[in-house]
Amino acid sequence: MVNQVQRVEDTWRTCSKSDSSGASNSGCESSKESSRSSTPVLDTDRTDRLRDKMRRRTESGDHWFSLEFFPPRTASGAVNLISRFDRMGSGGPLFIDVTWHPAGDPGSDKETSSMMIASTAVNYCGLESILHLTCCNQTKEKITGYLSKAKRLGLKNIMALRGDPMGADWEEEEAGFNYATDLVKHIRCEFDDYFDICVAGYPTGHPEAESYDEDLRHLKEKVDAGADFIITQLFFRADTFLKFVRDCRAIGITCPILPGIFPIQGYQSLRQLVKLSKLEVPEEIMQVIEPIKDNDAAIRNYGIEQAVGMCRVLLESGEVPGLHFYTLNREVATMEVLRQLGLWIEDPRRTLPWAVSAHPKRKVEDVRPIFWASRPKSYIYRTQDWDDFPNGRWGNSSSPAFGELNDYYLFYLKSKSSKDALLKMWGEELTSEQSVYEVFTSYITAQPNVAGHKVMCLPWNDDPLAPETNLLKDELDKVNRRGVLTINSQPSINGKPSSDPIVGWGPPGGYVFQKAYLEFFTSSENVTALLKVLKKYEPRVNYHIVNVHGQNTTNAHDMQPNAVTWGIFPGREIVQPTVVDPVSFLYWKDEAFALWIEQWAKLYEDESPSRMIIKYIHDNYFLVNLVDNDFPLDNCLWQVIDDMFELLDNPPEEQPAESLEPPRLFLGLGVWPN
Amino acid sequence: MVNQVQRVEDTWRTCSKSDSSGASNSGCESSKESSRSSTPVLDTDRTDRLRDKMRRRTESGDHWFSLEFFPPRTASGAVNLISRFDRMGSGGPLFIDVTWHPAGDPGSDKETSSMMIASTAVNYCGLESILHLTCCNQTKEKITGYLSKAKRLGLKNIMALRGDPMGADWEEEEAGFNYATDLVKHIRCEFDDYFDICVAGYPTGHPEAESYDEDLRHLKEKVDAGADFIITQLFFRADTFLKFVRDCRAIGITCPILPGIFPIQGYQSLRQLVKLSKLEVPEEIMQVIEPIKDNDAAIRNYGIEQAVGMCRVLLESGEVPGLHFYTLNREVATMEVLRQLGLWIEDPRRTLPWAVSAHPKRKVEDVRPIFWASRPKSYIYRTQDWDDFPNGRWGNSSSPAFGELNDYYLFYLKSKSSKDALLKMWGEELTSEQSVYEVFTSYITAQPNVAGHKVMCLPWNDDPLAPETNLLKDELDKVNRRGVLTINSQPSINGKPSSDPIVGWGPPGGYVFQKAYLEFFTSSENVTALLKVLKKYEPRVNYHIVNVHGQNTTNAHDMQPNAVTWGIFPGREIVQPTVVDPVSFLYWKDEAFALWIEQWAKLYEDESPSRMIIKYIHDNYFLVNLVDNDFPLDNCLWQVIDDMFELLDNPPEEQPAESLEPPRLFLGLGVWPN
Repeated sequence: MVNQVQRVEDTWRTCSKSDSSGASNSGCESSKESSRSSTPVLDTDRTDRLRDKMRRRTESGDHWFSLEFFPPRTASGAVNLISRFDRMGSGGPLFIDVTWHPAGDPGSDKETSSMMIASTAVNYCGLESILHLTCCNQTKEKITGYLSKAKRLGLKNIMALRGDPMGADWEEEEAGFNYATDLVKHIRCEFDDYFDICVAGYPTGHPEAESYDEDLRHLKEKVDAGADFIITQLFFRADTFLKFVRDCRAIGITCPILPGIFPIQGYQSLRQLVKLSKLEVPEEIMQVIEPIKDNDAAIRNYGIEQAVGMCRVLLESGEVPGLHFYTLNREVATMEVLRQLGLWIEDPRRTLPWAVSAHPKRKVEDVRPIFWASRPKSYIYRTQDWDDFPNGRWGNSSSPAFGELNDYYLFYLKSKSSKDALLKMWGEELTSEQSVYEVFTSYITAQPNVAGHKVMCLPWNDDPLAPETNLLKDELDKVNRRGVLTINSQPSINGKPSSDPIVGWGPPGGYVFQKAYLEFFTSSENVTALLKVLKKYEPRVNYHIVNVHGQNTTNAHDMQPNAVTWGIFPGREIVQPTVVDPVSFLYWKDEAFALWIEQWAKLYEDESPSRMIIKYIHDNYFLVNLVDNDFPLDNCLWQVIDDMFELLDNPPEEQPAESLEPPRLFLGLGVWPN
Repeated sequence: MVNQVQRVEDTWRTCSKSDSSGASNSGCESSKESSRSSTPVLDTDRTDRLRDKMRRRTESGDHWFSLEFFPPRTASGAVNLISRFDRMGSGGPLFIDVTWHPAGDPGSDKETSSMMIASTAVNYCGLESILHLTCCNQTKEKITGYLSKAKRLGLKNIMALRGDPMGADWEEEEAGFNYATDLVKHIRCEFDDYFDICVAGYPTGHPEAESYDEDLRHLKEKVDAGADFIITQLFFRADTFLKFVRDCRAIGITCPILPGIFPIQGYQSLRQLVKLSKLEVPEEIMQVIEPIKDNDAAIRNYGIEQAVGMCRVLLESGEVPGLHFYTLNREVATMEVLRQLGLWIEDPRRTLPWAVSAHPKRKVEDVRPIFWASRPKSYIYRTQDWDDFPNGRWGNSSSPAFGELNDYYLFYLKSKSSKDALLKMWGEELTSEQSVYEVFTSYITAQPNVAGHKVMCLPWNDDPLAPETNLLKDELDKVNRRGVLTINSQPSINGKPSSDPIVGWGPPGGYVFQKAYLEFFTSSENVTALLKVLKKYEPRVNYHIVNVHGQNTTNAHDMQPNAVTWGIFPGREIVQPTVVDPVSFLYWKDEAFALWIEQWAKLYEDESPSRMIIKYIHDNYFLVNLVDNDFPLDNCLWQVIDDMFELLDNPPEEQPAESLEPPRLFLGLGVWPN
């Protein structure tokens, strides 16, 4: 029997070592720290390399899937693809991969480049991603440049391909990249073990190979050169793949081999793909498809059925730990296949209450301010230059400076909706502040606005209300109607199981907690009444109130952060992923106020009444956050708002005017960015 | 109206600045860190300097008291004084001070030196302390050496005195220390603002001063040279002090002036003190005392009454923020005066569940392993060389190496009981393991042992059961009788108010939580059964089981620490002061096993049966810790032990012997210190 303590200690050391982002042989960055300083994080899956995750899933017999996408041609296509990443990411793929289009400036900073799409998937969508890279006709310097950039952007996995030679007169170059093997060797030579490397396998042989056996030998060379696993070209019969795996094993290829699954989605796309890949479609499939070739729905249904059947055979063979899907950037067919196979996890376990970035630098990150809860991509963007991320405590963050958010039109920050759609939702023409209140109310209640359109988003919330926030719908409805324009809220939670489908997160067997939180814009008149009311709620309620000019008041102790979401798990330290931090709030307020102008006011003509109304709110309203510290009791924040309305509706008449206290507001002295 | 945010920000910055231990002008150690990296701690009182605490208490009108002690003459006197510090510390003095005895090698490392006694008060008893220092007949080098040593030991406050010249032929030295003023100047010159400095005031004038006014001018000089506050010589009439304060204020002395209170405790001690201090006892006091001079109790009662009356007048005058007591190293009279004044706080609010050290280096410390819960001084001793202390998370501690505990006879680690007393409690003669079980049971139940003596301590617990542990008394009684020898335990707590008199800690308005914990020694036979039983309790129960030879098994995830005590407070991050850390446990086990031999076995003759019995337990028993992670449910650990007994009482007979699993124990490979 092994020494158990020795073993877990080793695991832990391995984990600590992988902190150096895999640069194990060349200058381990974490070596200067003591072994204790690298706190193991909540979810080892976050810290492991792709090949380790694959190995663990394979060992546990837990089947996985992965998804392939290609870069879009247009900027709006990029926005759509990013929101597709979010939707398809929620099903729990082990990884996604992004193809390399040599003709599309794939390594550039264009929003449609392979590099940018893959980087966005990792950094902003939190997806483990593989970037394809083709080496044909490229210099070593160029390739090294691409790889360095990929590493800098947080990409950790490369699919090493030869690519199609451009032009017919291609010949081998003596010192150049002639085969994928050369690229694999180059990556290992220049970047040591930093990248996990994937290579392509051809179950029916590469179209240009002399023979199937010759092609297998080439594959063996790629693996021997340092590839970690293989993804195959698509195929139409399970037997084709299973024979291929047997043949690979027979010549000593031991790494994981993932079948490339292509659910037939249409007659034209099938024809085109077959032509490109020089594959033959089996007769039994053509016989079904030909008669229904003009019926898209029928072909897709057949494609789903065919893929599901084939996948079942593959999974049951015991040779297939996971399935790789060629999605063609579409969702429906692949999701349906995965659902029928039981691999699509509708509500996957959340490691933390917010979406975790997959950038290796951020892997210990486990605390964030609540303010960006609905704008996680903006938060990641504004903290991308941080060297350390808070681990355990917000107060320990050594990099408090938030980057400016000047460009509200970065493609991963863009609204999924067009200007037209936004005008329909938020009003072609606003007539008063009241019409703004109605937009908020429509959003909260999911009821159509006066023009009959559903309000699916607000500048601060690009998605409909979260299920958790829906728990507060009635109260939110009531207060928004009266100009308490809520943009962020959470109910109090006193120890629900971590497996709770709505509010749960973290490992099983734990308990999650929250303090009630409410954040809203409201008028100066309301704030004056609110501040009077809040005196009754000291010290139960913490508040922070600020306007765009920096007029600012709070009762936060010594500007300390307040933990508002935390979890207790078996055998762990406490995890507190969300805080209300009074310092960060003043960075957030700049962004929150700017969104009125950037996303809403600018929909309207200069000087138009609609724009002036939004501008008025921007200039005169306050942004308020409230925390009810007494989480075991009923949330008192609604009572606070009720009391405020009550005071406004029934001002104490007998009190002589001169005894009314001035509002407790004052001008900031420029210590905060304005 | 002030800018509130600006103001709290300033407070926070001030707090951050005071991180540099006050060395504000000369090389601020924390300046290399960003301002965010110094997490404000739970209790600002811990981080403030004495003069700041004094100012805050004065501003809030919250009267305080402080206590003066002198160094003892013998080692056993030192042990007694340290335990007196613990008892009197629980009443909540703002500080204690330790006098300087030039004849007693006061700056040495002797356990009876002023330096060591004051250092122990700070480091091990967590008391804010002032070290007296006299300069008369000393070289500057010598004085600087004392001050450097005091700083190194964590002392932050000095009472600067001239001291009595040795011999009658004393003359002023040109460049030497002639007056306390010289010492004050020297401290400020050599140590900048590091120390808070106190000087002595003489309400009736210094006996050697030319006049009362001349003496006042000297006092003004001392304050002008940099003293922060004044403690006066004792006096017998409130008016004497109040006049003195008025006179000080009149010549421009503005710092705090604390009255020195001397409760008369006996006729001889009064005579001696009066002789030394050249004070006159007022006629009205002598008239009462003379007739009862042989009745100690009567004199003490009078002394208490007289002191209480005078203190009441002083406090009601509004001129006295706090009272300083000359205790003469006794407890009863001073505690009684403080009780009658309502200043003695029987159960003072605990900042954290464990006693906090007052060493400035440890001020951010807010997590400790639970194992040393009953041996906090040993924990402080073994971690005294750490440069950083865990703040927020145990996992972040960058100094995991525990110092060896070789000397079990350090005076602050010594048992308060004599060898005789220990033999009475733990048995003059042991006849079997069962007799050891009975000692544990007597300790738990507070019932006399077979010889009729109460067992007030065990090697692992120098005090009777904590009130919290008392909640578990019945269960502990039951299991100890059967050889589950418990040394540490806590009940589960699911959100009790932080003000709870038994389990509460931390600021008001919060909630405290605990996971149930049980730690015990037990036989190898019991452990074999226990490990079978524990399989039923996965993953609810975390366990760690080890013997003195390092045979070791645990189910701790990746050797991560498990938080077992935590608190949620208004406007704060989560505080988790106690963890079960599997790595530290292996350091603790060395200490825990060694205590069998060092404290118990060595009471008996070599080779005696009693010693052999303890030695047998030391060599063969296992140390076990169990955590029930499911804190909202009823503690299941008693059920685990019950199941173990059940399995031992009724082994499954039908099972053939060869199918019995071997115990899951294995030899450590020497990765842990043995």
